Amino acid sequence: MRPLVLYRLDLASSAPVRECLHAVDPRSAQLTVTDLGPTRGDGIFETVALLGGVGLSLGPHLDRLERSARLMDLPAPRRELWAAAVDRVAADLTDADLGRTRCAAKLVMTRGDEAAPGTPTGWVLGFDSGDPTPARRDGLSVVSLDRGYRHDVAQTSPWLLQGAKSLAYAVNKAALREAERRGADDVLFISGDGYVLEGPSSTLVARIDGVHVTPPLDMGILLGTTQLAVFEALAAEGLPTQVRAMMREELAAADALWLCSSTRGAIPVTHLDGVPQGVDRALSERLNQRLDARKA
Amino acid sequence: MRPLVLYRLDLASSAPVRECLHAVDPRSAQLTVTDLGPTRGDGIFETVALLGGVGLSLGPHLDRLERSARLMDLPAPRRELWAAAVDRVAADLTDADLGRTRCAAKLVMTRGDEAAPGTPTGWVLGFDSGDPTPARRDGLSVVSLDRGYRHDVAQTSPWLLQGAKSLAYAVNKAALREAERRGADDVLFISGDGYVLEGPSSTLVARIDGVHVTPPLDMGILLGTTQLAVFEALAAEGLPTQVRAMMREELAAADALWLCSSTRGAIPVTHLDGVPQGVDRALSERLNQRLDARKA
Repeated sequence: MRPLVLYRLDLASSAPVRECLHAVDPRSAQLTVTDLGPTRGDGIFETVALLGGVGLSLGPHLDRLERSARLMDLPAPRRELWAAAVDRVAADLTDADLGRTRCAAKLVMTRGDEAAPGTPTGWVLGFDSGDPTPARRDGLSVVSLDRGYRHDVAQTSPWLLQGAKSLAYAVNKAALREAERRGADDVLFISGDGYVLEGPSSTLVARIDGVHVTPPLDMGILLGTTQLAVFEALAAEGLPTQVRAMMREELAAADALWLCSSTRGAIPVTHLDGVPQGVDRALSERLNQRLDARKA
Repeated sequence: MRPLVLYRLDLASSAPVRECLHAVDPRSAQLTVTDLGPTRGDGIFETVALLGGVGLSLGPHLDRLERSARLMDLPAPRRELWAAAVDRVAADLTDADLGRTRCAAKLVMTRGDEAAPGTPTGWVLGFDSGDPTPARRDGLSVVSLDRGYRHDVAQTSPWLLQGAKSLAYAVNKAALREAERRGADDVLFISGDGYVLEGPSSTLVARIDGVHVTPPLDMGILLGTTQLAVFEALAAEGLPTQVRAMMREELAAADALWLCSSTRGAIPVTHLDGVPQGVDRALSERLNQRLDARKA
């Protein structure tokens, strides 16, 4: 990953937005070792794709940032400040000579410095998120891995923070290393009791009997900002969509699967646990064209 | 928390130990926003109590750091370098005028900067960890909370990182906030299938029918460095100890419970889920005296 531009956000101030945004060197040291982000993974984040000088699906991303803050008892994000920071990053990167690559903005809020409690730490980083074309064209080999939790823990045990996009992503990274060990590219998490959940950084859409299905939020998964846009694109084509719980075994009947994420779009799954999976290349291409044509 | 001294560790170098330790200002910015510690909670840590110029149970702490690194596919820690850093911090803080408080050293290794992959980031922070006397004397009110995982996920699903002391502690902090909401001080995690696990930053010891019992490591819990020292102290008194699986219901038969941790010692539990719990004040006091008399 290549950091390009960085803005620190002054989250303690109620001054006008432009006075609360500070451009700093993205490769310089910014955080103390007593910040609760680095020491506890105690914070939240969003990654917003940038295209044509705007942040794609910025509204749903800010909605999700608010939801994560609520689930983790963090102060409500000052929405116009975060939006202004993304706009600034998007404007900065329009003129950059980036070739075929894409850029994204990473929004991070930590609980702040344990040595000076009370004020969250915030920043928005603009970075090179790579060229999505190969994944969109070639698809992904995916393995299903146990997430350990029952499908209903978000209701029974909210302190497990399922559904919050927290900085505590070590398990997601470990699952991706396990996929690599098994010769695959990505992961689909399954609940301890057999329900389909999500990827470590993506939302699943499965086409079963002609209907495009994604699991519901009460499974303790993240609200999929890109999946929302994919469902809009499917609706625009007159194709049926549905949000419902699915068991792992039901995926055997799917004739197309996608993992949807901000930086890559709708990526077809070519193999699930080593078994070749049907791929709808034409629809995948149209979906990604529609995703790239989104307005902010 | 009050940061006192900080050493950066040069983990890429194989130079002599003293050349790989750099004293820096503990309140200065040290980490980039692309370090995988802050962005993913992707790293490991240990907290070592300091007393009389030495790190208590330093050997078991370094053993556990090695175990965490192995579970998370991180490079094996250079043991003598981490030990030297703790010694340096312990020596620095001996002369400080700290009154009744105690100090501890926090050892952290992250997977490094995503913008310059390959070298972990490392530091050892000396900080004021507070006076353990009130907790030792007054004990803790504890609530039991579901951890969501079955007791055997460390065997079936190692990517869930149970048993690794990772930086991804957001769930532990959320559980402590839930305890506070319920009017309690601390948490005892229970597996999804009813087994006693551990606290967010402590190990349980329960006295049942005269035997001091702690759960086994294959429950996906952390190796308890302080619990090890407590078992040595109990053995020195001729009291029986046992490592075995316990169901939550068995704790009703316990006539004493302790949560054991580096910075506080063996803390008696006075209430479990609101029910008053038997406390052995005399034994608690002797255990903590023995813990404080440990050599490095």
